[in-house]
Amino acid sequence: MENKIDKSKMLQSHIVLVNDAVNFKGTVEGNPSISIDYTPPLGNNLGYTSLELFLLSLSSCIGTALLAILRKMRKEITHFEIYSEGERKSEHPTGFQNITIMIHVKSAGLTDTEMVRAIQSMEGICPVLSMVNDKVDVQTMFQIMA
Amino acid sequence: MENKIDKSKMLQSHIVLVNDAVNFKGTVEGNPSISIDYTPPLGNNLGYTSLELFLLSLSSCIGTALLAILRKMRKEITHFEIYSEGERKSEHPTGFQNITIMIHVKSAGLTDTEMVRAIQSMEGICPVLSMVNDKVDVQTMFQIMA
Repeated sequence: MENKIDKSKMLQSHIVLVNDAVNFKGTVEGNPSISIDYTPPLGNNLGYTSLELFLLSLSSCIGTALLAILRKMRKEITHFEIYSEGERKSEHPTGFQNITIMIHVKSAGLTDTEMVRAIQSMEGICPVLSMVNDKVDVQTMFQIMA
Repeated sequence: MENKIDKSKMLQSHIVLVNDAVNFKGTVEGNPSISIDYTPPLGNNLGYTSLELFLLSLSSCIGTALLAILRKMRKEITHFEIYSEGERKSEHPTGFQNITIMIHVKSAGLTDTEMVRAIQSMEGICPVLSMVNDKVDVQTMFQIMA
């Protein structure tokens, strides 16, 4: 693994098993490690599950793209958070069948119409969304806070 | 967000913007938070990128499924780690076009043939892989260590 890579082209990660079950220590150079595990009986709840990391990956990707678009629209964002929830399929492979992305945003003068437009633009550029949007029904909703 | 949810059916996560750029604090209840950011000029390299979290999600999902299968084959695993590397598309949306998963495994008596069989079984059940494998070329390779 190289020290300096161009992250606009290539990305890397590393995980290593740290117990007798399925607890991994995950890292990307320069960051604190992340404990990854699964629920019992397979795992011991000692960290994030893989699907929770996926929700963080997807929602942060959506959030980053949206912030870039809203700022290009000259909006000043004073609060921005995303709650994500994914429902798994009942049969193997039990990936998500649908994901709800709920955005709470605070920005003086931002209208519903502008936010809908920003979300449409985001859907065309978000890398993580683009890898799953034909298999997973991702619904992006928002609430503009006073 | 509820405190206790059945993670075999439903999963949740939360991110909140913590600076004037794109640095998020990501969490799932009960876990230490993860700093998520992007490279300059959009971000400030203050954490994992969304696509790095995706690699951790995918590789830990593959690892967990493989460990379950290998143990069902009565294999004792004494070392297990995964290096992942993903190459992004050059045009928007810049998701991964291909990902290489390199598994290093140590297990007395484990043969190449058994490992190939385990990987084939894993490909049928890994939830994260199932959400992207028609869009992203995921190559899983391995090295059995002495």
